[in-house]
Formats: sequence, structure tokens, C-alpha cells
Amino acid sequence: MTTQNARTPERAQGAPESAGPTGPTGPTGSAEPSGSRAPGWHKDYVSGSRPDIRVPVRRVHLTNGTDVTLYDTSGPYTDPHVDTDVRRGLAPLREHWIVARGDTEEYAGRAPRPEDDGLKHTSPRGVRLGGGGREAAPGATADAAPAGLDAVFPGRPRRPRRARTGADGVRPAVTQLAYARQGVITPEMEYAALREGRAPEFVREEIAAGRAVLPANVNHPEIEPMVIGRNFLVKVNANIGNSAVTSSIEEEVEKMTWATRWGADTVMDLSTGRNIHTTREWVLRNSPVPIGTVPLYQALEKVDGRAEKLSWDVYRDTVVEQCEQGVDYVTVHAGVLLRHVPLTARRKTGIVSRGGSIMAAWCLAHHRESFLYTHFEELCDILRAYDVTFSLGDGLRPGSIADANDEAQFAELRTLGELTRIARDRDVQTMVEGPGHVPMHKIKENIDLQREICDEAPFYTLGPLTTDIAPAYDHITSGIGAAMIGWWGTAMLCYVTPKEHLGLPDRDDVKTGVITYRIAAHAADLAKGHPGAQDWDDALSEARFDFRWEDQFQLALDPESARAFHDETLPAEPAKTAHFCSMCGPKFCSMRISRDINERFGPDGDGSGDEEGSGGRALTGAEIEAGMLAKSREFAESGHRLHLPLAD
Amino acid sequence: MTTQNARTPERAQGAPESAGPTGPTGPTGSAEPSGSRAPGWHKDYVSGSRPDIRVPVRRVHLTNGTDVTLYDTSGPYTDPHVDTDVRRGLAPLREHWIVARGDTEEYAGRAPRPEDDGLKHTSPRGVRLGGGGREAAPGATADAAPAGLDAVFPGRPRRPRRARTGADGVRPAVTQLAYARQGVITPEMEYAALREGRAPEFVREEIAAGRAVLPANVNHPEIEPMVIGRNFLVKVNANIGNSAVTSSIEEEVEKMTWATRWGADTVMDLSTGRNIHTTREWVLRNSPVPIGTVPLYQALEKVDGRAEKLSWDVYRDTVVEQCEQGVDYVTVHAGVLLRHVPLTARRKTGIVSRGGSIMAAWCLAHHRESFLYTHFEELCDILRAYDVTFSLGDGLRPGSIADANDEAQFAELRTLGELTRIARDRDVQTMVEGPGHVPMHKIKENIDLQREICDEAPFYTLGPLTTDIAPAYDHITSGIGAAMIGWWGTAMLCYVTPKEHLGLPDRDDVKTGVITYRIAAHAADLAKGHPGAQDWDDALSEARFDFRWEDQFQLALDPESARAFHDETLPAEPAKTAHFCSMCGPKFCSMRISRDINERFGPDGDGSGDEEGSGGRALTGAEIEAGMLAKSREFAESGHRLHLPLAD
Repeated sequence: MTTQNARTPERAQGAPESAGPTGPTGPTGSAEPSGSRAPGWHKDYVSGSRPDIRVPVRRVHLTNGTDVTLYDTSGPYTDPHVDTDVRRGLAPLREHWIVARGDTEEYAGRAPRPEDDGLKHTSPRGVRLGGGGREAAPGATADAAPAGLDAVFPGRPRRPRRARTGADGVRPAVTQLAYARQGVITPEMEYAALREGRAPEFVREEIAAGRAVLPANVNHPEIEPMVIGRNFLVKVNANIGNSAVTSSIEEEVEKMTWATRWGADTVMDLSTGRNIHTTREWVLRNSPVPIGTVPLYQALEKVDGRAEKLSWDVYRDTVVEQCEQGVDYVTVHAGVLLRHVPLTARRKTGIVSRGGSIMAAWCLAHHRESFLYTHFEELCDILRAYDVTFSLGDGLRPGSIADANDEAQFAELRTLGELTRIARDRDVQTMVEGPGHVPMHKIKENIDLQREICDEAPFYTLGPLTTDIAPAYDHITSGIGAAMIGWWGTAMLCYVTPKEHLGLPDRDDVKTGVITYRIAAHAADLAKGHPGAQDWDDALSEARFDFRWEDQFQLALDPESARAFHDETLPAEPAKTAHFCSMCGPKFCSMRISRDINERFGPDGDGSGDEEGSGGRALTGAEIEAGMLAKSREFAESGHRLHLPLAD
Repeated sequence: MTTQNARTPERAQGAPESAGPTGPTGPTGSAEPSGSRAPGWHKDYVSGSRPDIRVPVRRVHLTNGTDVTLYDTSGPYTDPHVDTDVRRGLAPLREHWIVARGDTEEYAGRAPRPEDDGLKHTSPRGVRLGGGGREAAPGATADAAPAGLDAVFPGRPRRPRRARTGADGVRPAVTQLAYARQGVITPEMEYAALREGRAPEFVREEIAAGRAVLPANVNHPEIEPMVIGRNFLVKVNANIGNSAVTSSIEEEVEKMTWATRWGADTVMDLSTGRNIHTTREWVLRNSPVPIGTVPLYQALEKVDGRAEKLSWDVYRDTVVEQCEQGVDYVTVHAGVLLRHVPLTARRKTGIVSRGGSIMAAWCLAHHRESFLYTHFEELCDILRAYDVTFSLGDGLRPGSIADANDEAQFAELRTLGELTRIARDRDVQTMVEGPGHVPMHKIKENIDLQREICDEAPFYTLGPLTTDIAPAYDHITSGIGAAMIGWWGTAMLCYVTPKEHLGLPDRDDVKTGVITYRIAAHAADLAKGHPGAQDWDDALSEARFDFRWEDQFQLALDPESARAFHDETLPAEPAKTAHFCSMCGPKFCSMRISRDINERFGPDGDGSGDEEGSGGRALTGAEIEAGMLAKSREFAESGHRLHLPLAD
């Protein structure tokens, strides 16, 4: 985040959105999802070394004439100059970059099958798609959707792309890792560097070293490139996904855009049950952020949910299907080995990872090592042809405080380290997933061990939850652990919503989860001393101290709630006066007085900010005496007015 | 927290309360505040060495026949056998203990004056008091209250009590610190020890060493004694208080009981404006927890809000008034010295503490050292005669990330260390207040310095907030810092509600603030390895893993919300089956399988819990082979059923 006075001509005014988190989901009658628009947030772009590299930012114009520029994950939906339509999908921003590299080719691809959507018959039944359609009434539920709406994504037909076969008959790696190792700074790297305020070469070095990943499937050209690594801003992932019983495709697309509006850097589609393939297609074509999945879920649906019927062939077919669609990263639970299962014997909560329990079931049923482990090299060869990033799943993560940091967890971690090296040797980008439920004093060991065992591959953790006693508040129990592990080096935090352990998150839960995790991520960026991170805090605190209430709302992570809470309690006008403020007021401001003293008597009285107050220490007793005397006179003349703050 | 099978005959069944946080506030037509009752929480008592020491606990009866016993702060309101009435106040539990010590005497006391309630005229106007009255309709607003309801607390008239003048003409200290130093274990100490599951002698030692305080004014016999110190469970304080424009007396009493129902260990009444004296009287007479105040606020009201008109005489009179009413601890900003003010010169947010800004104003106006500092010894002599505990305020705490850990803050802390020693020399119990706004990497320095400078006096912190960017979510930005500083030794955490920086908290905000801070406090207890703290987590996790949903709800910090979130998303019945659970299901449970293996082949196959899974490690490869083979057969016979978990 940077503060500046300059304003770019490109700046656009974002139209205010009246809807709160539970209000209507977009301008009436339009196909725009609710991610659209943000009150007082001004969409702007920062240009790179070439005209086609335009990085979106959120520009906040303050009443004092300055701007604050913030990282923006909301995509084209918040640009009033861009007409978005979920049925057309987003523009393929990266397509010509990918084509220009000349190392990929389009091909016929795998023919979609009914079972991809969990359908038994050959004729796919109509898939419900509601308000997302242009004809649909705003906020229409899936059931109220117009009949006959096509189940298949109607956007431009696109043939899948993959690495072109080389002279040696082998498909080369077309991954950002491969390019980085070759010393190439791709447009994606420069784009991500601009977002981070870092040098493109630094991004290349971090990716080449395996300390960072840039998830960008060649079949997902719609994304705005971003980078995940311990030396960059801490990222946040939001999980969405329908299940056999709940939510329609439209609701999932809606959750995705809603999550990115509030700051989700990536989204995982964890759909199960029916329409997995179709739901994913709609999500991918409309997503400005990388999309992750767990292919195992869909593979299991293809074998009627019977783990023992899973096979490398079914899994392989599913992975190819998802690579062709454009999934940017996949969670693979290849670290669950036969010998690890007994280590969970004494646990309070056994195996709580869905993928982990599925693979444990398979291993036990076949009494063999997991096909994910035995075919890992082959899996690498598939992913590298599309630049799909590994997220090595922690299938044995602890599901309770009692099970934290146990042998089962760390035995799997050691296997993940082994797999990380195999993937890197094949130029496949790799990150590693982490727990789970961990008490505060056991958190650091997790990140330290992972860093050592997995050669600094980006760590991607779920929380961790720091206590088990607060179902309905696990966004908070986990937000505490997330902030701490982020500070210590975790690259991406997987959000937890208030519904964790209880049910599927709705729209409000998604917002609460994302906001809570943006807080954790930013608190971590501050603690890491990330360049510029504190500018945001400083701008808001200065606005608060200057009683610039509107600026304070605009700079808030959630402007709508901040304004609503303020107006709910305090009358609009009096609230703008010092009497209602938690500081000593504008007429008699102790900060101004002490600053005056410094400017008058301080050695370097430039009044510039100095967190350590050294200027104050530099004052001699005599200078203070004189200053205080002057001030007490001034104060008497001002009528001895004191404004009462609100709370101590 | 302890888990046990034994059930005591005293156990009472708590009547379920249909009301959510925003529902009606008690049984129809009764004067019981909403703290009353808690669904599924069973009020019980643990007896001490004498029949009049009966310590309340929250007993949770699980469907598997075991009980979980939890700390209970909710007072008599949750005991169906006790008929509470806010107009009569609570029974004076400690009165005969105090009388029996024979070192105090009743006296006429200070005559109340109109200005005590901020009234100019001699005839106090009727104070609004609504639904709290027996005749009032349930949920009646203050304005709808019956006319003529007495402004003065109608409970039994009580003369104030204070230390009896000794032979030397000096009033001795009647403080728990004095008793502890004399080697006396008071009933209060034993009571607090039982709540903590510690030995009474340990409580005495901690108090004698100044590492803990037991706030218990001789004029507040209604409280259930509790102890605050780094070697005890981390405590939570909730702030309430009306202001010139909002809320009635009844609303404040309501907030107090509501806060204690959810787990507030102490409550601070920060009322300003009118009716300060009367509001405090109602709160004190109905509070089962220690009450804290900031006498400076009322003193300022007595001089029309003009700081420079404050004097030791006005302040002294106010302190005596509050000591006689029964305030248990008082925040005193005696650490704000004239020479400290210039140190705030370079700050982004100057002085944000209300008390700090008032004292800074006084110092500047008079160009003299604060009367709180110059009369500190005299103040000690007042407090020790009532056993009122000092909470030395941090008037110069940082109000923004930029100002954290600066010279102004630490200069004041050094003064607070000096004052701590003076107070202890006079046998006055003392705790020290801390920040504020502090980024994660600067938090530990705060508690380490305070511990060193203030000779381990209990630290009592506000948050700290770990970022400034999230107004409306500062319960979360501060909950993160609170959990961490609690882990590192802070004894009590002052809650922050979602309304911080924006307005006055309402009932929902109070609940959210208390729940968030109970999470932070418990996470800290776990990280500190507090004896028995993890029993609660273990009981809930076991219930979760066994699909004992009702037990999971009952054990939740907020049973109502947990159940509501569950039912909102998932159909009641299917939800009780493994298919909807985030683990691998009851029919095919990987934990049971691996436990079976251990029991069959493990060296010490007692199946008992072992967090480190050493039993698993002890298995030989051959044993695992055999076990796995057996299991795979078993699994095949079971029909290869796998239940899908909800989320990975």
C-alpha cells in the first residue's frame, strides 16, 4: 500500500452500492454479480513496462487531498467502465501472453461426460441457473430461474491448451517456475510484482528458488496474476462449493465474486455431489483470481463415493479434465501413506481431513500404498504441461488441540517434503498445506519444521484454530492462529467461517470469513515489516485523529459496516465533533500542543512523524518549562475548553 | 475446568431460555435481568472447608454420562433456586466474613449530593428506571417505565464500612494483600482458590507477592470472590456505562448481568454525564463480579467538564464517595507527568486515553505536576481502608500502530512501576494497565517490560489491537493481540467490542466482545499450559468426533449460536449422520480402525489417549502389515461404505 498525491487520468468513480451484505446482489436486472462496485472505492490501474500490463488498484481519495492506494482483488466487476456478464465470462487477459510464448498448442481435449457432473444417464439434465442470467430477476433464487437456461457455460467455445510436444517427444514444462529458472521475467511476474510494489526480478528470483508460486493455468487466461510466498503480502483463500443438497451454480459464482470483492486472493471450489464440472466451468470463466480444487472429490463422485473403487485411471482422467478447464492449483493428498495410519490410533479426533480420510480408506481397502504417491511423477508430468500448481494436502492434520503436532502430522509433513523436491525437479510449482487445530504455543514449530523440511516452499494453512471450545466463532479462534503463523512466514491463509464444524457458509459467512482473514493477513504483514504495509494503518489513524470521519470509513476494511455502526449509535452531526471522540478533541488537542512545543524548541523541529518520539527526548528541561508555560497561557486564553472523549 | 463422573446432589436444572441476545430479557413480568438462566447450563456449587463457602460452577451433563465442570461468572441469576430482584439487589455473601474480621466499622459516611449525579439543583430529578422494576412490563424501554419509580436504589439501607481506627490513631490496611502478608488465608482466598482449582495457600502466596490481586471492597459484600494474576486463569473485563445522551440505568444493570452471563470476570462502569452515582449504586448492588470505575470521570462532571477546575479535594471527595458505595477497583492515571507530555509530540495519534488527556490538560493548565501523582500516598491511605484495588491507568498508551512502544508509553510505565511500589508498601492491592494499539511483533516487549518494571504486578491490557484498518471489527483486531499477550502473562484482558472507535456498545456488541475475549483468554490458558484448561477442548472434540451433536452444542462457549448455525444449514436428522460431518463417519472411522490396530498389536494397547501417538510409533512394520490386512478384509466385509465429510 502506498500513499500519494498524484492522481492518474485513468481513475474511475465507483458507483455506490446500497446493498449491505444481505441486500440485493447487484444493479437491478443486470447479470452483474454482487462483487460489482464498492462504495467510495475508486478502481484505478497502474501501468507496467508495456501497455497490456495494467494492474488494478483500489484508490481511496481522502478529503485532505491525498490518495491511498490499496491492493485490489475484486477484478473487473468493480470497474464501472467494464461491462461484465457472467454468461460471457471475463476477458482472457493473459491469452496473448500465453500464445506469444509459443510453447503451447490447442488440441481437441477430453470430451465431457455425464459422470463429470455426477450424472448416471447420457443426457445431462438441465442445470439450475438463476439470477445470474440476464433475464433473471435480481436476487432470484435458483428455483425461480427462467426455464430452459442452458446448463453448459454459453461463453465462447474454447479448445484446451497444453505444452507443445518437443523434438524429444516430451512435453516441456510451461510453468512460471521453468521460466523463472531460465531467467525469464514473464508478463505475469511483472504484473504480480507491480501489485506487490516489488521489482519484477525479485518475483522471478523467489519463484525460481521455489519460495513463491504464481498459480496460472494456461487454460485460465482470465486471471489477474498474483504471487504467493513468504516474502510477499500474506494471501487469503476463500472456500466455496455446492454440495449434494445445497446451493446452485449461480450461488457459487456469486460467492466467488463476493469473496474477491472483500479481499480473497484465491478461491477453492470444493463442490461435491452433482454438477461439479459445470459449476467449475462457470466459476473459472468468471473468476479474476486463481481457482483451486481437490480433484479427489470429483473422482470419488465418479465411483459413486466408494473410496476403494478409486484408481489412478479415474483420478488421472479427472485431473486432465480439470487441467483442461483451467484450474490453477490442486490439493493432492499424496502424503497419506499406509504406515502413517496407525500413527493416528491414539488421537482424539483421528483423521479429519476429507481427502485424508478418503485416501486412508483406499490404502486400507487395498492394503497398498496410495496411487497418488506411487504415480506422483506421472501426476507431475500432467500438471507441468498446463502449469497447474501443487498444493500438497495435509490429510493427517490435527482436528483438535489434543492432536496438534503429533507424530502422524509430522510423519506426513516429512513425506510432503520428499514430494516437494520431486515436483520441483520437474519444474512444477508447489506449495504445502498445514493445520488445523493448534494451540498458540505449538504454532511456530509447524512453520519452522515446514520451512526446513519443504525447502521453503510456500506454506498454506487452515487457521490454525487455537481452541476447540467455540463452534460458531471459529473464524475468531482460527483468525488468532492465522495472524501468528502468517507473521512467522505462512504465505497464504485458508479462511475459516463461523459455520465451520456446523454447516455450509452462506454469503454473510463468506464475508465474515474473508474480512477476519484480511485482518489476520494484514496484522501479519505489519509484524513482518512488509514494505508499505503500515501506510494503510497510518492513513486511517491520521484520519481518526483529525476527525475526518468520512476518510476513516473509506479507509476501513469494511466501509459499509464502519459507517453503519457509527450512524447507528451517534447522531450524524454531534458525532463529527470532538465531544464524541475517544481523543481530547480538535480545539484542545494534546498532540498539537506537544507538536508545537517540539517545533518551537525541538532540535529538528520539522514536526515529521517519529514513532520513537526521539525529538521529545531531545528537549531539555528548560525548553519544556518554557513550552509548558506558554501552553498553559494559551490554554487559559482558549477558555479552558476540554472536550470529553468517549471511552478511556 | 475438570471432567468428572460424580454428580452432586445439589445440582439444579437450569430452565431453558428462549431468548437470543436480542430477545426478551427474562421470564415475563419478573424483575430478573437477562443474565438469568442459560439453556442446558446446570448451576451447581462446590463446597469449601466451611458450609458458607459455596463456589458456583457451570456443570454440563453429557449424553455419555460424564460431566464437564466449567468456571461460572454468571452469579445467582442462573440459579433457578434463587429468586433475584434488581430492586432488592443480591445477598451480601461476604458480609459476615468481613464483620468477623473485626477490623472494620460502620460509620455515617458521606452525604450524597445532587452533583454526585451531575445535577445542578438540590432536588434530584426522577431517574428513569424501566423494565427492571417488578411492575415494569418485560423489555419495557426506559421511557416506557412506570412513573414515580424511585430514583434511589430501594434495597436495604446500608451504612458504609471502613477500617477501624487503631490505637495509634491510624486506620490499618484491611486489604487481602495485608492479610496475605500476615499469613492469613481469608474465606475470599479459599473461595477464589476453589474456582481456580488451586490450593488456598497458593492463592495467598501469589497475593502476598503482589503477583495477584483479589478485588473486594468491604462495601461490596455481594461479590463472588475471584483472583487476578498471571498464574491463574486469564480473566476478562467488560466495560459498560451510560453517557450524556444514551442508555438508562436499567440498561446498564442489564448489560452488566448480560456480560457476566457470557463470562465477564469483572465489569467497569464508565458512565459519564448524569446519574453516575445512582447508576453505580444499582450496578453494585446487583453485581456478582468486582466493579471497576475511573473516579476522574465523575470528578470532572462535578466541575462541569473543565479539567483545569479539577483539584485534589474534588477528586478525593469522589474517591471516598465511590469507596463507600463499594467500587472494587479504580483506574488512576497518576503516571501522566508534566515531562511526559512532550514525548507525545511526534505521535500520529497523541494522547488517546480519556483519563490521560484530562490529566495532560490539567498539567498544562496549571503548569504543575498532577495532583494524582503528588497526593498518591494520601490516595493509598484512603483505598487501604476499604480494600479498593489500584488499576494504574496507562494514560499515554499508543492509539495507533505507529505510536506503539514509544518513549511516551514506556516513560509512563516506569512511573507506574514507581507508584506500584508505593502502593504495595501501604498494603494496597495493585494492578497495572497496558495498551492499546500494538503490532504483533511489538507485543511481547510490553509484557516483559511491565513484568520487570512493576515487579510482576498483574498486567491488565486493552487488546492490544494488532492493526488500525478494521473499525467495526476491532473485537477481532484486538482479540488476536489479547490472546498473545495473555499467553505471555497478562492477567486480565479488557474487552473491545465491534463498536470501538465508532460508538457505544449495545447488548449484542457486549456479547460479541465478551465471547471474543473468552476465546482469547482460553487460548492463552491453553498456551500457558494452565492445569485442566484443555479438558474443555478435549470434551468438545470428543463429542464432535463421536457425533454427539447435543453435547457439542452444550459444551460450546455459545450453545445457542452453535445450535442455531447448525440447524440453519443442515436438516436435523441427516445432520446427525456421518455424511454431513467433516470427519470420516461412524460406520467407517479411521480413528477406530487405527485404534483397533493398536489394541491388537501395540505394545501397550490400552487405547488410552496419547497425544504424541507413541503407541503408533512402537508398532513394527510386520504388525502394521498384519493389522492392515485384517482391516482391509474387515472393510470389504463392511460393504466398502465411506461417508463423505463436509469440508477438507
